[in-house]
Amino acid sequence: MEAVRSKEWVLTSYVPEGTPTMEHMKLRSCEVSVDSVPDGHVAIQTLYLSVDPYLRTRMTGLEDGLYFPQFPLNQVITAFGIGRVIKSLSGDFRVGDVVTNPFSPVAEYYTTSCNFLRKVDPAAGIDLPCYLSALGVPGFAAWIGIQVLANPKPGENVFISAAAGGVGMFAGQLAKLKGCRVVGSTGSDDKVKLLKEEFGYDDAFNYKKESDLDAALTRYFPSGIDIYLDNVGGKMLEAVLNRVNTHARIPVCGMISQYNKVWSDREGVRNLLNMVGKEVRMEGYLVGSYLDRFGDFMTEMEGHLKQGSIRSKHKIYKGMESFPESLGSLFSSSNDGKVIVQL
Amino acid sequence: MEAVRSKEWVLTSYVPEGTPTMEHMKLRSCEVSVDSVPDGHVAIQTLYLSVDPYLRTRMTGLEDGLYFPQFPLNQVITAFGIGRVIKSLSGDFRVGDVVTNPFSPVAEYYTTSCNFLRKVDPAAGIDLPCYLSALGVPGFAAWIGIQVLANPKPGENVFISAAAGGVGMFAGQLAKLKGCRVVGSTGSDDKVKLLKEEFGYDDAFNYKKESDLDAALTRYFPSGIDIYLDNVGGKMLEAVLNRVNTHARIPVCGMISQYNKVWSDREGVRNLLNMVGKEVRMEGYLVGSYLDRFGDFMTEMEGHLKQGSIRSKHKIYKGMESFPESLGSLFSSSNDGKVIVQL
Repeated sequence: MEAVRSKEWVLTSYVPEGTPTMEHMKLRSCEVSVDSVPDGHVAIQTLYLSVDPYLRTRMTGLEDGLYFPQFPLNQVITAFGIGRVIKSLSGDFRVGDVVTNPFSPVAEYYTTSCNFLRKVDPAAGIDLPCYLSALGVPGFAAWIGIQVLANPKPGENVFISAAAGGVGMFAGQLAKLKGCRVVGSTGSDDKVKLLKEEFGYDDAFNYKKESDLDAALTRYFPSGIDIYLDNVGGKMLEAVLNRVNTHARIPVCGMISQYNKVWSDREGVRNLLNMVGKEVRMEGYLVGSYLDRFGDFMTEMEGHLKQGSIRSKHKIYKGMESFPESLGSLFSSSNDGKVIVQL
Repeated sequence: MEAVRSKEWVLTSYVPEGTPTMEHMKLRSCEVSVDSVPDGHVAIQTLYLSVDPYLRTRMTGLEDGLYFPQFPLNQVITAFGIGRVIKSLSGDFRVGDVVTNPFSPVAEYYTTSCNFLRKVDPAAGIDLPCYLSALGVPGFAAWIGIQVLANPKPGENVFISAAAGGVGMFAGQLAKLKGCRVVGSTGSDDKVKLLKEEFGYDDAFNYKKESDLDAALTRYFPSGIDIYLDNVGGKMLEAVLNRVNTHARIPVCGMISQYNKVWSDREGVRNLLNMVGKEVRMEGYLVGSYLDRFGDFMTEMEGHLKQGSIRSKHKIYKGMESFPESLGSLFSSSNDGKVIVQL
């Protein structure tokens, strides 16, 4: 093997508003020269790519220093990925090793230094897509939000938005394992069913069918809300702040309802004053700041997966061509569970 | 002395929007029978009353369970006060003792149980109004916000809104004592001068003269904001969230710009997503939840006052008649420092 044809997605224009589509990206084919891998580097064949909402925040072109840096135009998009080493000039990796890469190019093949690669242990007997969900960014984000920031006590009332999404799915299950009552909101009746039947949520509702979110939360939280893992922001956060209990905690993982708008067009939250009267703590977080806890997380989550006490659901898109569609699906409530592209 | 005439303010109607005025209250005169003080109780002559923004939140009539309970109509308003014991049927207090009372009626004279009374030590040599400011609710609120919740490190950039008000005045000085760079916003040029010349702020600005708060904060915080003690909410909070550094802390003491509006008319904060990208922690608080720290606070603050390392400024209104005007003044930027009524 000297060179391989590789399809990859490059970002061709920024998308300040609306959903990114195929019009903003280009699928190009190039040759990856496997024989000229530099010393200390490896060549990788991508197996799976993780499609997460934060990718969208790197495509706005609005570099304000307040979120992740923007993807450069006309370069290959990057995402969390899993791949197989097909050529190695590193002493740490052998051909055949399966590795995770938080900065994987959205490409079928690539060469890379080994700085951020992490070997997957085949003896663990865990399905590869789980390394992008329960054991990947979404699982870790759920674990930080629930265990580290919210620190739930048994019997507390926990609300999760985007509950059938990559993060929400695990957040609710982790809170249940802590003895909480957990309710989730999601965007379809099928997903309401999924939350209750598969993920053990005590209750769930389809926010698209609720004309009055305040009324909905009053119904689902007769004793108020102690913990809200916010994945959506906007009107839902406002409704939560009308229903919080004293010393409620709101870890903010993301605000997917707001990503497709420039900030001055976003929905303003008008009742932050309730944070004073109810002494609420709201805290935004990025998983990258908690890497010192990744080992603890892996140990705990692998245990849960092996015991079957945490379940996972993946929406698998097939083929490199499906990347833009898989990304768009995050904003349309059209899928269950963690969105993954399989190559 | 058998009975004394006492003037007192009762709330006659709630004020959901706008500033409370004399039209919403009635000054009535009644007789307080000093000879019939019940066992374990004392009769008190009020000397000073503390006029604080939170009083306004108890006059809206909107009992939503999210803030303090509403004052009952046609009953005497209560506030933090200092008084002198004029009759005692309690073993713990003697005639002549000066006491603080967090639930003092806004009345010249009253009888009360002794549960919440706390003796002022005349040997400390501290002016009585200081027990309502540096050593009272505002000083304690500033101390909790800065020392307990924000925990500043030397060199951090601290922003205080309503900086010349009861809380802001002390918050800025406490942050300076921690080695921070401190900038305040306030509502008049005189108060800007006061902050810089009396309270040792590194810089200050008159927000009424800034047409663009984002531009103002960019100018005053070239290295961004690490700590914001929020006393005002609304547009100022939004501007701060456009200028925060990673891991910024925002203790929320109050939101005076928002008190005179019903919640759905308040200014929405549209850029909470910056809390994720910058991993900001925002936390509302009420001093009543930190009473276990009151001793630590008193020890530290008395030390600062005796050494002259914390200064205090009081705007003293005279006579019971001035109570509504003193309350209204909180919302018009028309006074410096802590608002107090002296009887």
